[in-house]
Amino acid sequence: MADAGVRSAMADKATPDANTLQVLRDIASRLRINSIRATCASSSGSAAEITAVLFFYIMRYKQTDPENPDNDRFILSKRLSFVGVASEWLTRGLGLACGMAYTGKYFDKASYRVFCLMGDGESLEGSVWEALAFASHYSLDNLVAIFDVNRLSHSSTLPLEHCIEVYQKRCEAFGWNTFVVDGRDVEALCQVFWQAAQVKNKPTAVVAKTFKGRGIPSVEDAENWYGKPMPKERADAIIKLIESQIETNENLKPKPPVEDSPQINITDIEMTFPPAYEVGDKIATQKACGLALAKLGHANDRVVVLDGNTKNSTFSEIFKKEHPERFIECFTAEENMVSVALGCATHGRTVAFACTFAAFLIQAFDQIRMGAIFQININLIGSHCGVSIGEDRRSQMALEDLAMFRAVPDCTIFYPSDAIATEHAVFLAANTKGMCYIRTSWPETAVIYTPQESFEIGQAKVIRHSVNDKITVVAAGVTLHEALAAADGLSKQDVSVRVIDLFTVKPLDAATIISNAKATGGRIITVEDHHLEGGIGEAVSAAVSMEPDILVHQLAVPGVPRGGKPSELLDTFGISARHIIVAVKCMLMN
Amino acid sequence: MADAGVRSAMADKATPDANTLQVLRDIASRLRINSIRATCASSSGSAAEITAVLFFYIMRYKQTDPENPDNDRFILSKRLSFVGVASEWLTRGLGLACGMAYTGKYFDKASYRVFCLMGDGESLEGSVWEALAFASHYSLDNLVAIFDVNRLSHSSTLPLEHCIEVYQKRCEAFGWNTFVVDGRDVEALCQVFWQAAQVKNKPTAVVAKTFKGRGIPSVEDAENWYGKPMPKERADAIIKLIESQIETNENLKPKPPVEDSPQINITDIEMTFPPAYEVGDKIATQKACGLALAKLGHANDRVVVLDGNTKNSTFSEIFKKEHPERFIECFTAEENMVSVALGCATHGRTVAFACTFAAFLIQAFDQIRMGAIFQININLIGSHCGVSIGEDRRSQMALEDLAMFRAVPDCTIFYPSDAIATEHAVFLAANTKGMCYIRTSWPETAVIYTPQESFEIGQAKVIRHSVNDKITVVAAGVTLHEALAAADGLSKQDVSVRVIDLFTVKPLDAATIISNAKATGGRIITVEDHHLEGGIGEAVSAAVSMEPDILVHQLAVPGVPRGGKPSELLDTFGISARHIIVAVKCMLMN
Repeated sequence: MADAGVRSAMADKATPDANTLQVLRDIASRLRINSIRATCASSSGSAAEITAVLFFYIMRYKQTDPENPDNDRFILSKRLSFVGVASEWLTRGLGLACGMAYTGKYFDKASYRVFCLMGDGESLEGSVWEALAFASHYSLDNLVAIFDVNRLSHSSTLPLEHCIEVYQKRCEAFGWNTFVVDGRDVEALCQVFWQAAQVKNKPTAVVAKTFKGRGIPSVEDAENWYGKPMPKERADAIIKLIESQIETNENLKPKPPVEDSPQINITDIEMTFPPAYEVGDKIATQKACGLALAKLGHANDRVVVLDGNTKNSTFSEIFKKEHPERFIECFTAEENMVSVALGCATHGRTVAFACTFAAFLIQAFDQIRMGAIFQININLIGSHCGVSIGEDRRSQMALEDLAMFRAVPDCTIFYPSDAIATEHAVFLAANTKGMCYIRTSWPETAVIYTPQESFEIGQAKVIRHSVNDKITVVAAGVTLHEALAAADGLSKQDVSVRVIDLFTVKPLDAATIISNAKATGGRIITVEDHHLEGGIGEAVSAAVSMEPDILVHQLAVPGVPRGGKPSELLDTFGISARHIIVAVKCMLMN
Repeated sequence: MADAGVRSAMADKATPDANTLQVLRDIASRLRINSIRATCASSSGSAAEITAVLFFYIMRYKQTDPENPDNDRFILSKRLSFVGVASEWLTRGLGLACGMAYTGKYFDKASYRVFCLMGDGESLEGSVWEALAFASHYSLDNLVAIFDVNRLSHSSTLPLEHCIEVYQKRCEAFGWNTFVVDGRDVEALCQVFWQAAQVKNKPTAVVAKTFKGRGIPSVEDAENWYGKPMPKERADAIIKLIESQIETNENLKPKPPVEDSPQINITDIEMTFPPAYEVGDKIATQKACGLALAKLGHANDRVVVLDGNTKNSTFSEIFKKEHPERFIECFTAEENMVSVALGCATHGRTVAFACTFAAFLIQAFDQIRMGAIFQININLIGSHCGVSIGEDRRSQMALEDLAMFRAVPDCTIFYPSDAIATEHAVFLAANTKGMCYIRTSWPETAVIYTPQESFEIGQAKVIRHSVNDKITVVAAGVTLHEALAAADGLSKQDVSVRVIDLFTVKPLDAATIISNAKATGGRIITVEDHHLEGGIGEAVSAAVSMEPDILVHQLAVPGVPRGGKPSELLDTFGISARHIIVAVKCMLMN
């Protein structure tokens, strides 16, 4: 074995010298040993050579500064046992890699490149093909996807087995420059990754044929050993065998990054002038949201907006018109849109807002959930919520989006009731850590706040109150306007009710709700354009559940609604002013 | 114009005679006119010729009996304006078509064929590629997918525009026999659909280049007219133009179906002998679920099970072993798995159960939602729920699945707490209309019910009670066992608590909860291996929210959990017996 030491930075050429190749092989062997030690399973580690070549010959990064914005990015989109059993990895990480590569190429205009390692099992997920189509459409030549094709999976062999030519055909059909390679061949890996860097205007796919348990007699490529623990003596013998193949004791130092990412600042984005609406103006919150995004784009040049083929409905086209270079059209692929947004937002490179119908965000629940688990700062906007979209398809009515986002840990949920509140929601979201969701509505509703009103997360607004109030009505969005109409109607009958606008559904302003409920005889009515389950009614019920003497009556949309006229639908499904009035009277009679 | 009349059944040949071709063209023209009349938009109707040829020359079905099991199936996976503005269509229907085709080929072994018409915009959705991979892997030669490539979409032109050769390459790479065709050419359409029927062991894709507003001067293929209303006079002039091209007034009668689907019965599936467990046996509910599915498979030969590469974890492999011909491996493509299950279950052809980790079902929220909207009878099983899966990734812990399924209208949610309850849940689900979800757990827990116990949907079990009970603890699954342990611990301190096993989370047995709460001082503690939002705690809080003098204290998993040992995790995240004891004491002190 050669002396220990650290070789200097990699050579800038396709084929390393013989010694470097051996060092890379030895690094791979050590990764494989770690894999066996970590899992006591022998059949993992198919990507050891790929990982060794990427991290010690191809990628440019500062080992001591993993958060450096100039570093090449690596997305682990499969389980690698040598990074530790309990480690987290991204499923379907290629969309996220697309977002990073798009940011690198078009926003940062920087040299860093993005590598995404995927399993062959994962390539069966449709979102991977959404990402492949996206990357070629936008010519992301700074992106390399590696398919680790070892043909084995959790419970069976995979349908394409080792047919790497099928992977090749598919990647090529999706517009990618594609190499097939023996994933055990360190020299070949160096060559294809080097070539990938020379290709212009196309992303590169590396389809690597690999073997689980590689080099281990009667374990390599064997189905019965996949993911199974093995006796310690057997593992020790295998480790000994691999150790015997190690010839060097050197390390390789990765090449430093090119330092050409721009300095940016995405904190403390200020609303420099107040909203340009007056009380009584009529405008849909979803339109106000598009206008607010455009305004936000002027306040900070790292604000980017994504949309999934709905920009003329979500009004994100207003942002596009004013900031065309910061708008990403993601077409009808909502899962990928959310993943791309996550990628744009990682490392704090952009303030990303992704817009579509709230009903379509439901397709991306898994990506949303992963974004929250990884605590990435993104902002999602769901328009056309609830039955109030009217004469459209019932499948386009989002009636479960609040349940979805409320179940996402630490997600902030804005549900603005007018244009002023919407604009504040957009600016607050831009300045808030973690995931934010803004729920917007189709109907034109009156502006109720003055341009000077200030808004805070977790702070509800008591917008109608008197000392004689008998009931507190809690609402948001279109139902707030129904609640106000109900309050007007009731006041003519000498019944006064208090009205609370939640502004944020999560965090819920429990203190304001409870104190006002206590001041109004312990009676609350909630009304929401959403199903009861997981919505505002349940949130409020749970928040007051330890308060004696507070009753909550919930009005929400039951069952599967059908299309109709917006105003009629609110009434048909029990969330109109008329229903609120009936509920108030009922509650006061008991 | 020729005389009105109905021509007899289509000829069994590739090219119809000249008169039939003209009749088909005229049918297409009439569809196009209907489209303009229905929407007052001119730019739709790109699929008029495709629809005319399919419905009046290719497909075999009884016009008077649309539910006939021998009919060819047609899945509309794009919006067709001539079927009416308010009509619903399936998004991403190809997976559903796959389920129907799989059922036709392997379960019914019948002649009916399945046609799925998709838009080019929709083909950007990843789930379409999951379905394409599935169909070729299972050689579904009774399936035809038609891509209506008109290059225009809601808000922009599509990335592939009219590059039909790219669609062709992609479909071929995914293993499909692929034809490209001019979608306006009725004769060519007849030929490719006829050829599709001759192809063995491969599904067929027909990539049709079409034009919106076809044949209308200055509207055909124009971006600015897409989906837009046009002045009535203009529409009238266009209708006149199209009418002038109609030469016949005949109708074509579709050929009748081949009547070779088997007679089946999927109702009243009986558990012919009681569960084979004894009180005190230790078994995980997810294992009991696999065993129950296998038993159910013996009780009815139309029970089918799908799994997404997790069969050795969900124990659906037990079903596979006993009924291999009725097991469908869907690999790592959960969205497609749910769609295929929906397709298997349509027309009441099978009793379908789809199994995977509960966390992976989250990827299929949109398919689940659509299944509920279309009221299809499927059963979903989610294993490995909650933090109790222990030393695994936090992304694999389902802590939002109850929120998701509860927000699905009319979904029945079983959350069995032991093997006996699990077996009953499986049999009840098989006999229940609409969507059913069964939530199962990883830890081995004791059997608490006798084999003779009977179970009903919406009926909770009071499994521990005395006249001295001070608090009612509501639980399900692993937390029920924690509640029982807590009750044991508390009884040693002379505090007796009542324990309720929910059995079904939806419908919730509000009556049992309320009456027992009233009998125990109005105090409830809920404890669940799930986030609070949308879970059991909120469901119970909402259910008792109009009851004065009932307080609910919720124990649920907060934030983003990390992996660890199962027993430790329940404690770390506040849902163990110890926490229940503390909560009981706290509540009694106030």
